[in-house]
Amino acid sequence: MKEITGGICAAKGFKANGIHCGIRKNKTKRDLSLITSDVKAAAAAVYTTNLVKGAPLTVTKAHIADGYAQAVICNSGNANTCNANGIEIAEQMSELVEKAIGISKDDVVIASTGVIGQVLDITPIANGMDELAAGLGDHSDFAAEGIMTTDTVKKEIAVSFEIDGVECKIGGIAKGSGMIHPNMATMLVFITTDVAIAPELLQKALSTDIASTFNMVSVDGDTSTNDMVTVLANGMAGNSIIDKEDETFAQFCKALNSVTVYLCRKIAGDGEGATKLLECKVTGAADEKTAKTVAKSVICSSLLKAAMFGADANWGRVLCAIGYSGADVDVNKIDVSFESSKGRLDVCVNGAGIDFSEEKAKEILLEKEIDILVELNSGEATATAWGCDLTYDYVKINGDYRT
Amino acid sequence: MKEITGGICAAKGFKANGIHCGIRKNKTKRDLSLITSDVKAAAAAVYTTNLVKGAPLTVTKAHIADGYAQAVICNSGNANTCNANGIEIAEQMSELVEKAIGISKDDVVIASTGVIGQVLDITPIANGMDELAAGLGDHSDFAAEGIMTTDTVKKEIAVSFEIDGVECKIGGIAKGSGMIHPNMATMLVFITTDVAIAPELLQKALSTDIASTFNMVSVDGDTSTNDMVTVLANGMAGNSIIDKEDETFAQFCKALNSVTVYLCRKIAGDGEGATKLLECKVTGAADEKTAKTVAKSVICSSLLKAAMFGADANWGRVLCAIGYSGADVDVNKIDVSFESSKGRLDVCVNGAGIDFSEEKAKEILLEKEIDILVELNSGEATATAWGCDLTYDYVKINGDYRT
Repeated sequence: MKEITGGICAAKGFKANGIHCGIRKNKTKRDLSLITSDVKAAAAAVYTTNLVKGAPLTVTKAHIADGYAQAVICNSGNANTCNANGIEIAEQMSELVEKAIGISKDDVVIASTGVIGQVLDITPIANGMDELAAGLGDHSDFAAEGIMTTDTVKKEIAVSFEIDGVECKIGGIAKGSGMIHPNMATMLVFITTDVAIAPELLQKALSTDIASTFNMVSVDGDTSTNDMVTVLANGMAGNSIIDKEDETFAQFCKALNSVTVYLCRKIAGDGEGATKLLECKVTGAADEKTAKTVAKSVICSSLLKAAMFGADANWGRVLCAIGYSGADVDVNKIDVSFESSKGRLDVCVNGAGIDFSEEKAKEILLEKEIDILVELNSGEATATAWGCDLTYDYVKINGDYRT
Repeated sequence: MKEITGGICAAKGFKANGIHCGIRKNKTKRDLSLITSDVKAAAAAVYTTNLVKGAPLTVTKAHIADGYAQAVICNSGNANTCNANGIEIAEQMSELVEKAIGISKDDVVIASTGVIGQVLDITPIANGMDELAAGLGDHSDFAAEGIMTTDTVKKEIAVSFEIDGVECKIGGIAKGSGMIHPNMATMLVFITTDVAIAPELLQKALSTDIASTFNMVSVDGDTSTNDMVTVLANGMAGNSIIDKEDETFAQFCKALNSVTVYLCRKIAGDGEGATKLLECKVTGAADEKTAKTVAKSVICSSLLKAAMFGADANWGRVLCAIGYSGADVDVNKIDVSFESSKGRLDVCVNGAGIDFSEEKAKEILLEKEIDILVELNSGEATATAWGCDLTYDYVKINGDYRT
């Protein structure tokens, strides 16, 4: 497996584009993206578990109920959620795609992201559709920009790998930043691949993968109303179709995981206002559930996140977050260390503090990527969760999001 | 019932004091408090549910296992938690009290608050004990100051009420500010009363009360390791002892509730970095559990808290927080309004946005006390939760707490 360029257009038969159509006032910000496959593709998706669900999710669910789709349309700047006419507008978006490029509206995945509770005006989308369609090509980057909200960097990745001697590719784009929290489907992620795979196995691969990837990311503890991850697999790589859980399925899952883990780290590191990527690695847990619960609790602690912003080795907050996580752990066995490219420092052994160099701690914690290592000394299970620090800019961004 | 002065010294037979003994570097900050009763008092307590528990809680639990206590000692500046010798130090604190004022060490409630994982040096406490004991008197305010950490204002209250024609008093002090979240015992609260009441009924009154008071407060979603609430009832008011759940028990519970609600509002409004007190009032719920779950989820949303700091009427975040709360609600029936001393504004009806004046919203939300009103239109149950906004100062305080 190797990383390649091209993002969601790396896999054979996929085109993308992103334009500014006018949903946003800022004319330099793309706000409408389109992804298409030359042929119908197996489709899988996972959605937010928030009871308040964006209208686009409801429509998408219906459209891919048969296991297939051929295009994705996504706007930013408005979530089309909590509006009386949301479903109608989402349906209109898919109809506009059908009209512009001839792909059946029933094969269109629809997504919207942005402010909740304001009516989404279809006019700029309708007016921009011809330009959006005409520009379809090798433009993963434009599509990645078009789905960004408060993200500061676009998030795209692609890898190539072999199945039975056939070269296959898989790529993805994501938008993250705010309203991100475990126990959901997740943020917006669109993945494309030219692998031939049966829809039910594609869904299985995705559902299994997100449990240890997107569901282990938290920026702010707020589970969004509009999260979804979709994968389109159009089979154009030419491999024998993956239709059972064999070795080739495992190879595909591994490739998918390399894409999703990359996007998780990107989403966490670009959390709203973030200056640091935090990775909590839990080892020695009695079981995987315990490991995950502990990792997520640590990564979600506002107090720890603020301490990491201040490069303060306040490990008591790590223990505190483990203690209230609900996981059944023996606190007197817990070791905690901090690690970055500047080295590793043990700060707590058997649940109690040990002497350490504050100077060394500062040096480690001033880096941009910090690992918080938690050893539970009670078994073999492990888990990793990703998050970011809590900063002045998070408050600034969210104190005045709508204006 | 009427509000009176005197705090925890308002009730007959209680004395208090607070001094700077030297745990903290800042010599103007009191860091050691003592509360005593002239006679042995019925005692009740609730504790944090965090698995990581401060050593003082373990010792306190043993000391009041018989239902009685006569003194409370509490230091700030160090939580005496996650230290190898924590229990030993907590025991020594109670021994110092016995030595100084003759109250049996087994009748002493011990509490500590401050940084976790640093050894608590007993020396300044031992050195300060004579001064602390000599100054015991009508000094509720000194004791209230002595337990403060990042609190900006001291929190004390007292009320008088009648039971069977006998005047009774109840007062309390609290420390709050950070690491505060529902589903725990709570922050540090010490309540004194001269009511005569059996220990088991005192415990029942307290345990019942906190479910709708301190457990409905959240500043930052982090449940502290050292939270506790204790009540000492010394019976010196002279009422016939309350020993069953009759009308006089109800009168006592009501008086207790007026003290705890006051302290809840104080704690929430003085949350770390807070500029506003937020009160989420949920009505029309199918049952009380649903009402509480919804109110707590709204009050805990970082996104909503940041929006309130920015006086931004972003009600979509209220709906979003209800949606991921886990409560079984019909989102299409939810109405949301914002209210303050400047008036009330409806912003969402039946789960969808309505037109409203942004100017009026700003005027309402610029006030210091904001009510977020959620009507679920599905029943008669109600709940209230208290919290505060998320501000630059929260990040500042917690980015560098230890230094």
